[in-house]
Amino acid sequence: MAKVNDNYLKLPGSYLFSTIGKKVREYSEKNPDKKIIRLGIGDVTQPIAKSLIKTLHSAVDEMGAAKTFKGYAPDLGYEFLRTAIAENDYKKRGCDISADEIFVSDGAKCDCGNIQEIFSTDNVIAVCDPVYPVYVDSNVMAGRCGDYDEKKGTWSKVVYMPCTAENNFTPELPDKKADLIYLCFPNNPTGSVISKAKLQEFVDYAIKTGAVILYDAAYEAYISEEGIPHSIYECEGARECAIEFHSFSKNAGFTGLRLGYTVVPKALKAEGTPLHPLWARRHGTKYNGAPYIVQKAGEAVYSEEGQREIKEQIAYYMKNARYIYDGLKTCGYTVSGGVNSPYIWLKAPNNMTSWEFFDYLLENANVVGTPGSGFGPSGETYFRLTAFGSYENTVEAVDRIKSLGL
Amino acid sequence: MAKVNDNYLKLPGSYLFSTIGKKVREYSEKNPDKKIIRLGIGDVTQPIAKSLIKTLHSAVDEMGAAKTFKGYAPDLGYEFLRTAIAENDYKKRGCDISADEIFVSDGAKCDCGNIQEIFSTDNVIAVCDPVYPVYVDSNVMAGRCGDYDEKKGTWSKVVYMPCTAENNFTPELPDKKADLIYLCFPNNPTGSVISKAKLQEFVDYAIKTGAVILYDAAYEAYISEEGIPHSIYECEGARECAIEFHSFSKNAGFTGLRLGYTVVPKALKAEGTPLHPLWARRHGTKYNGAPYIVQKAGEAVYSEEGQREIKEQIAYYMKNARYIYDGLKTCGYTVSGGVNSPYIWLKAPNNMTSWEFFDYLLENANVVGTPGSGFGPSGETYFRLTAFGSYENTVEAVDRIKSLGL
Repeated sequence: MAKVNDNYLKLPGSYLFSTIGKKVREYSEKNPDKKIIRLGIGDVTQPIAKSLIKTLHSAVDEMGAAKTFKGYAPDLGYEFLRTAIAENDYKKRGCDISADEIFVSDGAKCDCGNIQEIFSTDNVIAVCDPVYPVYVDSNVMAGRCGDYDEKKGTWSKVVYMPCTAENNFTPELPDKKADLIYLCFPNNPTGSVISKAKLQEFVDYAIKTGAVILYDAAYEAYISEEGIPHSIYECEGARECAIEFHSFSKNAGFTGLRLGYTVVPKALKAEGTPLHPLWARRHGTKYNGAPYIVQKAGEAVYSEEGQREIKEQIAYYMKNARYIYDGLKTCGYTVSGGVNSPYIWLKAPNNMTSWEFFDYLLENANVVGTPGSGFGPSGETYFRLTAFGSYENTVEAVDRIKSLGL
Repeated sequence: MAKVNDNYLKLPGSYLFSTIGKKVREYSEKNPDKKIIRLGIGDVTQPIAKSLIKTLHSAVDEMGAAKTFKGYAPDLGYEFLRTAIAENDYKKRGCDISADEIFVSDGAKCDCGNIQEIFSTDNVIAVCDPVYPVYVDSNVMAGRCGDYDEKKGTWSKVVYMPCTAENNFTPELPDKKADLIYLCFPNNPTGSVISKAKLQEFVDYAIKTGAVILYDAAYEAYISEEGIPHSIYECEGARECAIEFHSFSKNAGFTGLRLGYTVVPKALKAEGTPLHPLWARRHGTKYNGAPYIVQKAGEAVYSEEGQREIKEQIAYYMKNARYIYDGLKTCGYTVSGGVNSPYIWLKAPNNMTSWEFFDYLLENANVVGTPGSGFGPSGETYFRLTAFGSYENTVEAVDRIKSLGL
């Protein structure tokens, strides 16, 4: 008799964004005349840049001719892309990461979800609170999280690192023993950043305790201020204690093309066992490479033209971020994020809970955001807006919210 | 202190195809003048069909325009593709499978490797011997297989179903209790098929014992004879006991584009728990959809023109299969497969082991195949050749083997 993985049954309700989708659908059906503006989910809206489209077309042509056709990609990614990543994202920043430490994949979400597999199920994980749900849910599925306390919204075996207004939404070191520490900066959902000195504290802690840091750098392209680390490998010793995840989704708009990569340095060990061959084995056994045409587009992101184009796109979204930030601040909202990140994190006014404010905005401004409590208990009374909409919609949404007053 | 998943350390040596690659590289370096022909790995060589290339171009253009740009795909796949699959691969064959039971992914290998996650680690798996390595290796990683016996080449907790000349390379029912039964027909590596009556026996067994069948139909497009099931859902009761995997790699040459799908019927339960929501949750948490442009090409496979083109491609490969089969048979080899499958399974002559024959062919005919023992102990003394090369190379390879005599 086949038995299911009981850990799956412990996962509460449905995924945050499904609940939002349902609420919006119901409102929309009852109010078909209202124009709803979505600043909720972190999906981009600008089309793929011109030079990348050109590259995609040329790669498609290669797939259509016998002489240039490409079958299975190398498990770990094409050399041309791994070299471009090592050169541009690491060597140019003074980080000691080489092409053969880079694993190309179909996105940071998959890698963030799958990475826990190479670790024992009895590791203790530490996460920021609030947090991107994938880190916790993938560990619940593997049986690392214990039981869910519905009242508190927390898991019994997970170590939480609260990110609140008091610590400027940057976590302190775990206050209990933790073996795997998930960090994401610029942060989703709060839009906060971490200083190099603070990140070095985490690296030093990990080296001292033998913990591994799982560092999600999906939003690094949005860093606009000097002195903020773009990669954890800017910190001394990180090669010995950290895995890093990157995405082409947010910097180059690849949410619908699917491309990302993970760095596992060869120096990284757990209990003396190198992790690089374990992740290589996982990749080789359960994955079959990202499409050639998408990897070619990924390479083109690093060309001069590609860089110019994606910087324009990021500037477009950051103009939105500034409009939201300034608009709400002027209106009296307590706002953070939005400077080195496409996410604006705001405090719900008048003692509303996150979901109360969600309903309030949906019904009165026809604007959709994401309730902070959906990301963890410390997100309660907070709300996330994203800069990924069109400029026109963003302006209209903010003006509608402003017109409601406080 | 982070601890690794010890199960990974139990996996013996490197992946079969890595060892082959290494041997070929070494031979090639020592003999740079020899033209090596590769009929080893199951990778296609024909370019993507014309009408699919056209569709890819038009989908790329959509990604480059603001009005038609697509971000995140729906987790479970675009409706247009799921509907085309349900209609063409199931309804037309009289199978009761609907679009919302289909999960689009980036390939059957990933799905075959990941599916075990939704089951408890204390299930017993049964596999054919010889077998596609991913089924076993992914279960070793999860801790379901016990210990490896290097001498026997078997795992202590795995139930093996030998596929030998005596049973025409079609397995008997498991002779010990098994909870998850992996089947692949047309078979990789033997090229054998299963009759509907025999497959029905497995379905009946699964229903009686509460086992779940994991049915890999990656090669169904190569079935040329009447009366052989293309899908397990042609059997009565399979909706209650089977999950099915499909690939676009072998029928439409998508090994480098990456597209596949998995069917989890809503009626399928394990211990009373429906599996459909579990796989949906896995997909939603750890996966982010196949690229829009690739899903559009997948839809085009089902168009009239697409069908005509891919049938031509399959006929091309099957002409190769026939040439290998007939050529070796005439020469006195014991050969099977190759009629409903792109794989030819042959007995190594003169009491050679699989690896001895591999070396013999590499050195004397400069032809690369795959040693049968790499797929399991019952594969010893057998050898796999694939029909996925070019016709010219296939003819040359077979003629070289024939000229060696027996």
